[in-house]
Parts: sequence; structure tokens; C-alpha cells
Amino acid sequence: MIKQFEIKLPAYPKGFHLITQMVTDRLSELPDSGLVHILLKHTSAGITLNENADPSVRTDFESFMNKLIPENDPAYTHIFEGADDMPAHLKSSLIGQTLMIPVTNGRLNLGTWQGIYLCEFRNHGGSRRLVVTIYS
Amino acid sequence: MIKQFEIKLPAYPKGFHLITQMVTDRLSELPDSGLVHILLKHTSAGITLNENADPSVRTDFESFMNKLIPENDPAYTHIFEGADDMPAHLKSSLIGQTLMIPVTNGRLNLGTWQGIYLCEFRNHGGSRRLVVTIYS
Amino acid sequence: MIKQFEIKLPAYPKGFHLITQMVTDRLSELPDSGLVHILLKHTSAGITLNENADPSVRTDFESFMNKLIPENDPAYTHIFEGADDMPAHLKSSLIGQTLMIPVTNGRLNLGTWQGIYLCEFRNHGGSRRLVVTIYS
Repeated sequence: MIKQFEIKLPAYPKGFHLITQMVTDRLSELPDSGLVHILLKHTSAGITLNENADPSVRTDFESFMNKLIPENDPAYTHIFEGADDMPAHLKSSLIGQTLMIPVTNGRLNLGTWQGIYLCEFRNHGGSRRLVVTIYS
Repeated sequence: MIKQFEIKLPAYPKGFHLITQMVTDRLSELPDSGLVHILLKHTSAGITLNENADPSVRTDFESFMNKLIPENDPAYTHIFEGADDMPAHLKSSLIGQTLMIPVTNGRLNLGTWQGIYLCEFRNHGGSRRLVVTIYS
Repeated sequence: MIKQFEIKLPAYPKGFHLITQMVTDRLSELPDSGLVHILLKHTSAGITLNENADPSVRTDFESFMNKLIPENDPAYTHIFEGADDMPAHLKSSLIGQTLMIPVTNGRLNLGTWQGIYLCEFRNHGGSRRLVVTIYS
């Protein structure tokens, strides 16, 4: 059995944001056992699992990724949409745009410390959309 | 229901290549709703989603990844298959070798700007193979 | 049909470790055709596919990742759990924590050179747990 729907996220500022609660609130009728797939429908943002407790982890992700993939690299040729554009595309493929999470006993079976991050790589990315597919 | 088959891609030069059309041409009978999984069966190439319109994005991916993961690092010990070999393995795990894409109304439900990239990290990688699994 | 279970891995030292055999030993009754999903339930380790033959590849992964994401960066603010902690979180999201592998003719359909790596990013990460979900 397949259930599929979209989630329209609120606009986030550039940075790493915990959206686990926002996603699970939309997964009201999970099967006993299955998988939940999430696709972020964008190429300048990312989605990943990481530490869900200490906000300093998300702050450090933001500063590290900015240093790893800097703006205004003179080698970039795709520059007409702003200094944050090409770095956002690069970060998006390194972090990834899809997640698959097991469902066990009707709940997302994540590790204790695992939360879902929305990684906003643009300064004004606006609202982002997810496609959620539930398999059971 | 499961459908599974292989796609043998043509040999590509080192770089990032849009293969969305080539893949969708092989997905002629998609279910109404489901998921398509793609595995690239190689460890020196990658597969990812990114911007499908402007070729300059793919050019910048190639130059950025070469700078991030340079050839001839004196720390490499796996060097007998050429200067492009170990960087290709590293890039392959950072970009990834699998994709899972939702199917909605009989079509891949990607974002407007999302295309499938074959990322060829070897100078002479030859033909690459994908395993496609369709779930409905 | 869904089958789901956990694998408790032995504690590994910091580094990249081939666990293909250990995982396949637990997949005794694979379907003819399907998919196997693996989630690593941790945020300071990773799981990926890469070269399964030459151990020098795994050595080079370890030294490269340590150089790409160094310890003791003065920009880190999440530092109370040790110098290897924040780098481990960063590596975890760049390498990833989930894998999906096709099953064909009752076996994992990986490329000839593809093996499953457990990437241990902590000095004393202890035993790591995987959730395996088999779809057919």
C-alpha cells in the first residue's frame, strides 16, 4: 500500500533547521511496519539526518559548509542568480535531497539522536516542498 | 508490484551529465503512484539530482569537485590505477550511488529544476550500468 | 511484503570498515526481486558503498576525510564531547546514514566492486545499530 502527499514548509532563513516534528505531525496514520520516503523538490537546499538535541550542531554545520563551499569562487561560471546560488547547488548534492526512514510499530524508527534537518542554502529560498511517500 | 531492469549508459567523458531523458525513456509504463529506485553499480562514478537547465552548473560541479578532492595528493596510497582513481572513489561516496524518486500520476515527481546527473569521475570510465527498480 | 530487523554491529575503531559479509549473513531469505533498506541509527557514523577489494581505499578514505573535516577548527562551538565529535556529525551527513540496495534473483544486486562500508567517525563510537527493511 502506498500513500503519498506533499508538505509545503514555511520559508526558513539560510541555515540548518530541525523539521522532525513538522514532518511527523503530517504522518498521522503510519503503518505498523514500512518505509517513509521524502523528496525535497529543490536543487538549492538539502535534507539530512543529524543530531536533534543541541542547536550548536546546526550552527556549526552552517559555518562549516560555508567554509567548505565558499561564495564568490572566481572559478564559478554560474553566477547570474547571486553569490549564494552556485554554492547552494553544490551543497545540495553533497548533502542530498532524499531520505528513506523505516517505520516500526507505527512510528519513524530513527536513532535517539537523529532528527530531520532542512538545510536551506539560499538567502531567500522561500517555501520548500517535500513529497512524502509511505510504503507498507 | 516490482519491476526491475538494467540500463547500460553510453560512455561519458569525465564530468557531470544530464541523463533524465535517457532514464525516463526507459520508464515507459510507470504506475499511478510509487517509487523508482536507481543504483549505479560502480564505485568511481556517482548519481545525484541537480539543476537541469543551465549547463554552467554542471561545468562548475566538475571544477569544484576537482578542487575539493584533488589528484596526486601525496597522502593517497591507492595510486596504481592512475591519478584519477582514488579521487573518483572519494567523490563517489560524497555524491552517492543511489537515488529514489517518487512517482505520481504515472510520472517521476521531481521538482521543476531537478534533473538526474550521471557524475563520471574517471577519465576513461567506459559504459556505466544502472539497476532500476519500480515499486507500486 | 515487508521484513524488518535490527543488526547490532561490533564496536569498530575510527575508520572505514567493510561490513558486506556481516550484513548479507543476516539476509538469509531474500526475495527473488525487491529492495533492501538499511538505516544506521547514529549521527556520528556513516554508511556508504565503495570499493570492496583493496584495503588501501579505506585507508585513504580515513585520511582524506580527516583532512577535509579537521578536528579543533576554532569555528566549532559544539565542542564539549571531544575533538572528534563535531567532525563526526559533519562527516555523517556528507557520507549519509541510509542505503537502499536492489535484490535480484535472491541476492543483493551490487556492482562487482561495490561493498558496504561502516564509516566510524568517533574514536570510541562503540557498537552501532542498523535497521534493515526488506521489501518484496
